[in-house]
Amino acid sequence: MSLETTLEQSRQKYEDELVEFLKIPSVSARSEHKGDMLKCAEWVRGKLADLGMEAEVISTAGHPIVYGEAMDAGPSAPTVLVYGHYDVQPVEPLDEWKTPPFEASVRDGHMYARGTADDKGQIHIHMKALEAYKEAKGVPPVNIKFLFEGEEEVGSVNLEEFIRNNVDKLACDAAVISDTPMLTPEHPSITLGLRGLVYMEVKLTGPSQDLHSGQYGGGVVNPANALAKIITQLKDDAGRVSIPGFYDAVKDLGPAERRSLEDTPITEEDFEREAGVSATGDGEAGVYWLERIWARPTLDVNGMVSGYTGEGAKTIIPARAMAKISMRLVPDQDPRDVRGKFEAYVKSLKPEG
Amino acid sequence: MSLETTLEQSRQKYEDELVEFLKIPSVSARSEHKGDMLKCAEWVRGKLADLGMEAEVISTAGHPIVYGEAMDAGPSAPTVLVYGHYDVQPVEPLDEWKTPPFEASVRDGHMYARGTADDKGQIHIHMKALEAYKEAKGVPPVNIKFLFEGEEEVGSVNLEEFIRNNVDKLACDAAVISDTPMLTPEHPSITLGLRGLVYMEVKLTGPSQDLHSGQYGGGVVNPANALAKIITQLKDDAGRVSIPGFYDAVKDLGPAERRSLEDTPITEEDFEREAGVSATGDGEAGVYWLERIWARPTLDVNGMVSGYTGEGAKTIIPARAMAKISMRLVPDQDPRDVRGKFEAYVKSLKPEG
Repeated sequence: MSLETTLEQSRQKYEDELVEFLKIPSVSARSEHKGDMLKCAEWVRGKLADLGMEAEVISTAGHPIVYGEAMDAGPSAPTVLVYGHYDVQPVEPLDEWKTPPFEASVRDGHMYARGTADDKGQIHIHMKALEAYKEAKGVPPVNIKFLFEGEEEVGSVNLEEFIRNNVDKLACDAAVISDTPMLTPEHPSITLGLRGLVYMEVKLTGPSQDLHSGQYGGGVVNPANALAKIITQLKDDAGRVSIPGFYDAVKDLGPAERRSLEDTPITEEDFEREAGVSATGDGEAGVYWLERIWARPTLDVNGMVSGYTGEGAKTIIPARAMAKISMRLVPDQDPRDVRGKFEAYVKSLKPEG
Repeated sequence: MSLETTLEQSRQKYEDELVEFLKIPSVSARSEHKGDMLKCAEWVRGKLADLGMEAEVISTAGHPIVYGEAMDAGPSAPTVLVYGHYDVQPVEPLDEWKTPPFEASVRDGHMYARGTADDKGQIHIHMKALEAYKEAKGVPPVNIKFLFEGEEEVGSVNLEEFIRNNVDKLACDAAVISDTPMLTPEHPSITLGLRGLVYMEVKLTGPSQDLHSGQYGGGVVNPANALAKIITQLKDDAGRVSIPGFYDAVKDLGPAERRSLEDTPITEEDFEREAGVSATGDGEAGVYWLERIWARPTLDVNGMVSGYTGEGAKTIIPARAMAKISMRLVPDQDPRDVRGKFEAYVKSLKPEG
């Protein structure tokens, strides 16, 4: 049987399985989903075992890693390591979902559910590709190792140690990662690199409790105002990050790299249509838009909250303010170094009182 | 019987009634409490009727007003109008309460529940004072009018029109308002005036949905960062509000007023102990701390929210950001004028994109 025929005949079965996979709320960031994470890891391990692979769920200090291998091609054949992650982002805000986040629904030929595009969909494609190949053609010409983690959305904190401790087990000739975007549906893309991440939480504590703004306003530091001021001072008017030393390790692109950005077959209009907002609105002044997004480090507030945010008015000076702030890093920027510089700078901005 | 004896003997009964009053969750800012507001107004009306007053619940475009009068002292006696409000502030954040907000609990001789100090406690004292007086002494020497509204915590939006339309009904020789602080438990205080309020909501909309900060960071305006920048530009480094024309109508204090502030028998230490934070941390540089709190206009963030604020990390560029910002106004500042200046200034700060 041809591979195409097998894929065609199995389509419904594969889709049903994917829906089952997407149903497990494997939100790595939320501790209440710890059990779901384990359940999801076991589900993936079961699928690998069904493929005839040696498969195991490996505990870490955080969420487990699923590992499986099929070495049937023999020692002289090349080995391919496929990476993916079975954890997903939190689903809030819930009222923005047109259909429930863990019940896959198909609209206009696209399947919608948390994780379809990042990264359960891809994990599933890799597994089903192997399944279809084995069914249609038998043993594949390469040895295959699957490494699926459960902490990608929270910074892959335990993955590095696992890799260091299992260099022989993970040895391969090529590593495949598909947790990356395609430029457009018509342009299959190979991603050369992704920016790294430092994620920080800034918490300001002011009064011992929320205070009446009429009786205290003008007399006490308002943590929300103070936080806004700190956030503002993290970037200058030209869109550059103001943390001292932040750009020390950043290298400029070479002419060939710059040309390749300009040759990329997507336009600013494509980007703006997808983002729903102008591509030229932010980032470093004078830097080509794709370079800003792909090759320059950035700083963004990912969330912030303070005081009363419900319906109507509440005239308080909030006792606290919090912001989640992340920086995207480029080659040669050391996350530990950037974190230290961020902390020192934010402390220097903290107001008295 | 003496008034003191009556008060002593009725203490438990009065306390039980207050607990019942405090139990009604009359949160004017939240539409889900609309029924509770009406229930609370009816409860107060019933208490006025029990006092033998002509009492009514009067509908407004918002929450109802409770009005009652006892004109027994006769046309030649003076008339006192007592103002109060039966609505309370929202109770969030709930985890800051040591006991449930609508179940009064007594600790160290203080009663804790939403509204005990603002303003159900005071309404109750006025009603029970009349009750005790009538029981101990009979008809009081003054005519009494009670005007209790249900929208004080949301800006008393319908009170002004009610007063304008009922000038004769509300005619009086003295108006008593006790919804004001005492300087210390040992210093009964007469409040000469309170600052007014303009309350605004600033909403920024950026991308059509939350975006991945790794794929879009550096390319799109982040509404949370942009909001922080706007908030920061509302006050300058010397603590003055930066809205053009904001101080136009503000008059300086005269020497006598300034002296009376300095003679006030509370110290910065008292204030700091109560606020749980330094009194000198905010407000206009070089202005005496009590003048800043009592006699100068201010601007404060009362709440703000954007993006992901739950546990753990979520690497998004938020689609939206919102802040509730209020300004305290002093005599001669027109709230409509200030609102217009605020709106024009904030619009001028809005970023492209």
